[in-house]
Amino acid sequence: MSNNTFGRLLRVTTFGESHGPAIGCVVDGCPPGLALAPEEFRHDLDRRATGKSRHTSARREADEIEILSGVYEGRTTGTPIALLIRNTDARSKDYNSIAEQFRPGHADYSYWQKYGLRDPRGGGRSSARETTMRVAAGVIAKKWLALRFGVSVRGYMSQIGELTPEGFDLDAVEGNPFFWPHAAQVPALEAYMDALRKSGDSVGARVDVIADHVPPGWGEPIYGKLDGELAAALMSINAVKGVEIGDGYASVAQKGSEHRDRMSLAGFASNHAGGILGGISTGQRLHCSAAFKPTSSLRLPVRGVDVHGNEIDVVTTGRHDPCVGIRATPICEAMVALVLMDQALRHRAQCGDVGEVTPRIPGQADA
Amino acid sequence: MSNNTFGRLLRVTTFGESHGPAIGCVVDGCPPGLALAPEEFRHDLDRRATGKSRHTSARREADEIEILSGVYEGRTTGTPIALLIRNTDARSKDYNSIAEQFRPGHADYSYWQKYGLRDPRGGGRSSARETTMRVAAGVIAKKWLALRFGVSVRGYMSQIGELTPEGFDLDAVEGNPFFWPHAAQVPALEAYMDALRKSGDSVGARVDVIADHVPPGWGEPIYGKLDGELAAALMSINAVKGVEIGDGYASVAQKGSEHRDRMSLAGFASNHAGGILGGISTGQRLHCSAAFKPTSSLRLPVRGVDVHGNEIDVVTTGRHDPCVGIRATPICEAMVALVLMDQALRHRAQCGDVGEVTPRIPGQADA
Amino acid sequence: MSNNTFGRLLRVTTFGESHGPAIGCVVDGCPPGLALAPEEFRHDLDRRATGKSRHTSARREADEIEILSGVYEGRTTGTPIALLIRNTDARSKDYNSIAEQFRPGHADYSYWQKYGLRDPRGGGRSSARETTMRVAAGVIAKKWLALRFGVSVRGYMSQIGELTPEGFDLDAVEGNPFFWPHAAQVPALEAYMDALRKSGDSVGARVDVIADHVPPGWGEPIYGKLDGELAAALMSINAVKGVEIGDGYASVAQKGSEHRDRMSLAGFASNHAGGILGGISTGQRLHCSAAFKPTSSLRLPVRGVDVHGNEIDVVTTGRHDPCVGIRATPICEAMVALVLMDQALRHRAQCGDVGEVTPRIPGQADA
Amino acid sequence: MSNNTFGRLLRVTTFGESHGPAIGCVVDGCPPGLALAPEEFRHDLDRRATGKSRHTSARREADEIEILSGVYEGRTTGTPIALLIRNTDARSKDYNSIAEQFRPGHADYSYWQKYGLRDPRGGGRSSARETTMRVAAGVIAKKWLALRFGVSVRGYMSQIGELTPEGFDLDAVEGNPFFWPHAAQVPALEAYMDALRKSGDSVGARVDVIADHVPPGWGEPIYGKLDGELAAALMSINAVKGVEIGDGYASVAQKGSEHRDRMSLAGFASNHAGGILGGISTGQRLHCSAAFKPTSSLRLPVRGVDVHGNEIDVVTTGRHDPCVGIRATPICEAMVALVLMDQALRHRAQCGDVGEVTPRIPGQADA
Repeated sequence: MSNNTFGRLLRVTTFGESHGPAIGCVVDGCPPGLALAPEEFRHDLDRRATGKSRHTSARREADEIEILSGVYEGRTTGTPIALLIRNTDARSKDYNSIAEQFRPGHADYSYWQKYGLRDPRGGGRSSARETTMRVAAGVIAKKWLALRFGVSVRGYMSQIGELTPEGFDLDAVEGNPFFWPHAAQVPALEAYMDALRKSGDSVGARVDVIADHVPPGWGEPIYGKLDGELAAALMSINAVKGVEIGDGYASVAQKGSEHRDRMSLAGFASNHAGGILGGISTGQRLHCSAAFKPTSSLRLPVRGVDVHGNEIDVVTTGRHDPCVGIRATPICEAMVALVLMDQALRHRAQCGDVGEVTPRIPGQADA
Repeated sequence: MSNNTFGRLLRVTTFGESHGPAIGCVVDGCPPGLALAPEEFRHDLDRRATGKSRHTSARREADEIEILSGVYEGRTTGTPIALLIRNTDARSKDYNSIAEQFRPGHADYSYWQKYGLRDPRGGGRSSARETTMRVAAGVIAKKWLALRFGVSVRGYMSQIGELTPEGFDLDAVEGNPFFWPHAAQVPALEAYMDALRKSGDSVGARVDVIADHVPPGWGEPIYGKLDGELAAALMSINAVKGVEIGDGYASVAQKGSEHRDRMSLAGFASNHAGGILGGISTGQRLHCSAAFKPTSSLRLPVRGVDVHGNEIDVVTTGRHDPCVGIRATPICEAMVALVLMDQALRHRAQCGDVGEVTPRIPGQADA
Repeated sequence: MSNNTFGRLLRVTTFGESHGPAIGCVVDGCPPGLALAPEEFRHDLDRRATGKSRHTSARREADEIEILSGVYEGRTTGTPIALLIRNTDARSKDYNSIAEQFRPGHADYSYWQKYGLRDPRGGGRSSARETTMRVAAGVIAKKWLALRFGVSVRGYMSQIGELTPEGFDLDAVEGNPFFWPHAAQVPALEAYMDALRKSGDSVGARVDVIADHVPPGWGEPIYGKLDGELAAALMSINAVKGVEIGDGYASVAQKGSEHRDRMSLAGFASNHAGGILGGISTGQRLHCSAAFKPTSSLRLPVRGVDVHGNEIDVVTTGRHDPCVGIRATPICEAMVALVLMDQALRHRAQCGDVGEVTPRIPGQADA
Repeated sequence: MSNNTFGRLLRVTTFGESHGPAIGCVVDGCPPGLALAPEEFRHDLDRRATGKSRHTSARREADEIEILSGVYEGRTTGTPIALLIRNTDARSKDYNSIAEQFRPGHADYSYWQKYGLRDPRGGGRSSARETTMRVAAGVIAKKWLALRFGVSVRGYMSQIGELTPEGFDLDAVEGNPFFWPHAAQVPALEAYMDALRKSGDSVGARVDVIADHVPPGWGEPIYGKLDGELAAALMSINAVKGVEIGDGYASVAQKGSEHRDRMSLAGFASNHAGGILGGISTGQRLHCSAAFKPTSSLRLPVRGVDVHGNEIDVVTTGRHDPCVGIRATPICEAMVALVLMDQALRHRAQCGDVGEVTPRIPGQADA
C-alpha cells in the first residue's frame, strides 16, 4: 500500500518527484460549476515558491500550471481536475554524491529501508517539491469555501528559532517574505536569517493558521473529527513535528475554570478551544498551528552512514532553505482549506436533512 | 457521513453511547490464528477504568467484555471480531438538568448544531466512555505486535498541571494511579489532586507514549505517514488539543546541526526525530505525546446558554474526572498500537516483495 | 485485510457467525432525525426468515433485534446504529462430521486456504445467516429513501429452475412464499419444490429488483457508477453468479436502433437501459437482477476431499434450503436500497450546489 | 463526491476527457522494484486502439504514453506512477451539433441531470477514451501478477450479435481484430460487420476473461469478495449491462447435484463455479464475462429531446464503433488484472502470517 491521496469526499492525489519530469495532482470530488482558470493558481504558488528572496532555496521553478481535465468553458464539470507542472530547474548532478549516502535527519534511510531502493535526486518523492501540488489543490478549496460559505483561511509565522512576534497585525503578513504578523520586526528577522545562512546552519519555525466564518457543525465524530483531520493534514507536511488546536500544549497547565469558553447570547467570551468542541466546529474562529523542525540539509558536515556500511561525513551542497518554515505558510493554509472543504461536503451528505445553514447560538441575532 | 471507523487494513468500528444499553466495537482485518480470550482484555480495561482511585470519576462499570464473533476455539479466524460491553452503572437522571443546556467546553453545542438533536445522557456519543472500546481493540493490536515483531507500546504521564517528573523510571509507571514515571513524587501528586478536587476545579495533563522494536520501514508517504496517522489517532481522543512527535514544538528553536540525529555503525546517536523520518519508522524508539485539556465538567458554575436562547448558570453535578489525562495513558497506548498494527499490515502488502524483515543500518550487527 | 463493511457514506459493517453467540451490524452515516423502532425490522426479517414454509430450511430463529446505539427517544441521532440478534437455534452438532471435510460447492475449501483455519459450524461466516443483518440495515435505507424521495424498492422471483412467470402482477408477490409475481402458478411451484425436496436435490433461481421514483443524477462516474455498485452489492450475496442491469445479456443480440431508449417530452419510450446511463440514474424505473446457483448442501453424496488428504463421500445432514433463491428477494431489495441511499448521500455531497431536486426532462410537466 | 479511483491497495485514479488536452492515470500502491518501461504499454494499447481495422472507429490516436513519476532507473520505486497520454486526434467540431442535445442511449442526459452542465465534446468524461488508461494500468498489474505468481489473464469475444464461436482455440484470439477464438469464422464476422456498418446500425457483444494460476485464497469476504469486485470492475466499463462468474445465469436452471464441482486428490472435476467459492479463489481457472450493449451513436436518426425542452431528431455524425465490444477484450482483461493484483496485496496483508504460498488440495502433488 502507498498513500498519495488526501481526503474522503474531496480527494487530492499527488504524484511526482523533485527532479522527475513533472509533478501533478488529481482533485476528485469538486462540485460542478465552479469558475476556475490557470492564472488563479499563480498567487499562492508564488507565495510558496523558492527563489523569491535570499532567505529561501535558490531553485527557481516557473511553476506553470496546466489544467488537463475537469474544466470545460472555464467551469468545473464535476469530473476529476488534473493539474500538471513540469519541473524545469532540476539540477540532479548536485545530488550524485549523496545517492548512496543516508543524510542524517532525512528520509533517505527510511525510504531505503521501506522500499529497498529510492530516487535520490533532490530527495525524490520525499522532497518538499510535492507540497506545490497541495498549494494548487488548496487554491480550489479556498475559492469554493469563500464563495459558498464566506470562509477565509489565513496563515502566518508565529515563531522562528527563538524569535516570536512582538505585535500582531494580520495585514502585515503578506508584506514580508516571512509571513510575519509584525512589520517592525522584519529587519531583525532578515539579520537573523543572514547570520544563520552565513553560519551554514538552519532553524525551525512555527506557523499558525486561522479560518474565519466556518459554520458550526463541521467535523465527524469519532474518527473523522475536524481536529483529528487537521492534525493529520498538518503533520503530513514535510518537517512538521507537532500540531496544536486552540491553546494546545498550554492547556495542560490550565485549570478547567480557565480553559472552558463561556457562552452568552453575544457568543463565546473566549476561544481556548480554537473553534472546535467534540471534534466539531463551533462557529468560532478556527485556530491551529504546526511546528517545523530545522532543515537537515546543511553545509556543516555530519557523521553518517552509506548503503555499503561505511561511516562517512555527509555534507550537503545542493540548494536548500535555511528555514523550511518560511515557505510553509501557504502549504499549511492549503491543508486546512482542503480539510474544511472535505468536511463541508461530508456534513451536507449526512446532515443535509437538518439544513445546511445551521443556526447560530439561540437568541443570537444573525450577523 | 459519519466516521466511527479507525484504520485502513485493521479497521476498528466503535459504537455506543455513555448511557445507552451497551458499547462495542468490531475489529475487522485481524490476521487469523491469533490466540484470544475474553480475560486478556481485563488488564488494560482496568487500567482505563473509573472508580479505581479517588482521583477519577466514581462511576463503576464492570466492563465485562463478550466476544461475539471472529474467534473459534480460542483463535481468531480472520473474520470480524465483535466485542460488547453492557453499560451497568449509567445514572442518566444526573443529566436531566442539562438536557437543554450547552455546557461550556463540551460537545453539547457542536453536536446540537451538527445533528439538530443529541443524546444528553452522560454526554452520549461524545463521552469518553467510547474510549473503552479503543482500549479493548488496542489489546488485540498490542498482542499481535508483540508476538509478531516484539514491539512493546508503553505510555506514561509526563505532566499534570504545572508538575513534571523529577525523575524517569518506566518501571514506576504501573505502580501508581497516575502512570507517573517517578515514584517519589506520587504523594505530592495525590496532595495536588486532593486540593484540586476540593476546589471543584480540574486540570490538564500530558501523556507520552513510546514504542520499542518498531521495525524500520513502517509508514506510508505522503498522506498515510506514520506520524500523520499517530497525530490523527491521538487528536481523536477526547480532550486532546496537541500532539508531538519526537522533539515536537521544541524543534522550532533548535538549530539543524542540533536536531538532526547522527548515524554511525552503532546506530543513531540521538533521537530528536522520535523514530520517524519522512513519515516512515527508522527503527529507533518511537516517541510521541498528547496534550489533554482540563475537564470542563465542574462543580463551579459557569455562564452558558440553553437551547431556548436563555443565558443560564451551568453547574455540573454528575460524576466526572478532575483530570481526564489520568486515565488517558492506556487509551493513548491503544491508539498508537492500532496505528502501528495497521501500518505493519500495509507495509507487508506493498513491500512484501522487498522482504518483511528489513535490514538494519548496513554494517551493523543484528541485535 | 478483511472487508465486512459495505458502502461509502452509509456504511454497514456486519459481524457474526452462523452458530456463534450473535450476529449484528453497525450502520454508520444514517442522517439524524429518522424515526426508528425495533418493531420496524420485523416485516422484512420475517420475509427473509427460514422455517416459514416447508420450502425453506427448518431452522427457526426468533430474530429479535436489539438497537444498541444511535437512537435516542425514538429517533436516529447521527451516531452509529448498532443492531444485535442473538442466535438461538444453532445446532452445531449437525456439523461435527463436516468439520474436517471440504463440501464441494461450499466455501469450506477456499476459507481454509485463505485463513489456514475456519469455523465449520453451520458454515461459520460464509453462511447466509449473515444476510439477516443486510436485511435489517436495508430496512433503514428503505425507510429513509421512501420518506425523503418517495423511492420504493421491490423484488420478486423471476425464475426458479426452468420455470418462469407466465404473468406479471407485483401485487401477487407478497402473497406467496416464493415472491412469485403470478399467483396462478404457485401450486405448480409448490409441487415442483416438493418433488425436488424429495429427490434430495436443489435448484437455482433468479431474482429481480425494481426501484421506482429514483431521481435522476444518482451514481458516480467512473468507478462508483450506480450499476457498478449494484453489481458488487448483488454479487456479494451468497450463491449469486450473475448480475444484470436492464436488458443485461439480452443486449448482446440487440441492434443499437432497438436498444437505445427514445426520449420525448412525455419521457422515455422504453427502458432497455434499466434506468441507468453512464452509471447515473435517468429517473426511469431502476431494474436489475441476480442469478442464484443451486444450494450445494444436499443429502445426495458427492465425492470430496478432507483436510488430511483423503478422498471421501460428503453427505450434508444439516438443515438447508433446497433453493436459496426463495428467501433471497428481501436480501436483494436490501442491497439495492443500501446502494441507493449511499448514492443519494454522495450525490448531495458533491452536487448539493446544483440543487438536490434535479430537473426532469426539459419541458416535461412535474408529476 | 466523485469516484475516479479504482481499487483499495492498488489504487488507480484516472482523469481526462475524450477531447481534452490529455488523459492520464495515477497508479498508487505498486510494489517497488518492478521493471517498467514506456514501450511495455504499447502492445495492449494497440490492442485497444481505434483505427486499426475498418470495424472500429476511425479516430487514430498515437497513444504515446509518458511515465511522469514513480519509476527511477527503469524500476518502480513504490511511489505513485503517473501515466500521461496527450489527445491528438480530437475533432470536437464533430460534436458541436449535439452540445445541447440528449442522445438517446448516451450519458448526456444523466450527466446533465447530475452536474447541471457537461463537456459534450466526444462524450467528455463518459467516453470510452477513459478506458485507455485502464488498459495502461492493467499492463502493470498483468506484469506483476505474471512475475510474482505466474498468473495469466486472457480475454476473448464469445458472442457478437447472434453469432457465437463454433470452435474454441485461445491461440486464435490474437490473430483477428475481433479477439474471436475460432479462426475459421473470422470471414463471416467481417461480412457481418460490413453489413452492419452499411446499415448504419450497431450490435452488442459478449467478452469472456479467464485467469490461470490464480492461487487459492484471494478474495475478501463479505463485501470485498473476489467475484463482487470483478462484477463491479466489469460493470464499470462503458456499455456493460451484465456480468457472470462461472456458469452465471445458466446456474439458475441447474440442479445442485449438477452445479457443485466435485473434488478429488487430482483436483476439481469441473468448474461451474468459475474458480471462486464464498468470494475466495479456489485455485481453479478464474472465469467471468461481461455483456456489452450495442453502441447508441448511430447514423440512423432517433427521436430525442434537447436542453431547451424541444423534441428533436438526433443523428450522430462523429466517428464511432459499430460494436464497442470489439475493442473491449483488453479492457476487460485489464480490469480483471487490477482486481487480482489488488486482492493479492490485500491477501498478503491479512494472511501473511498464514504463508503467502497457500497449500494445494491436501495430498495433491504440487505442479
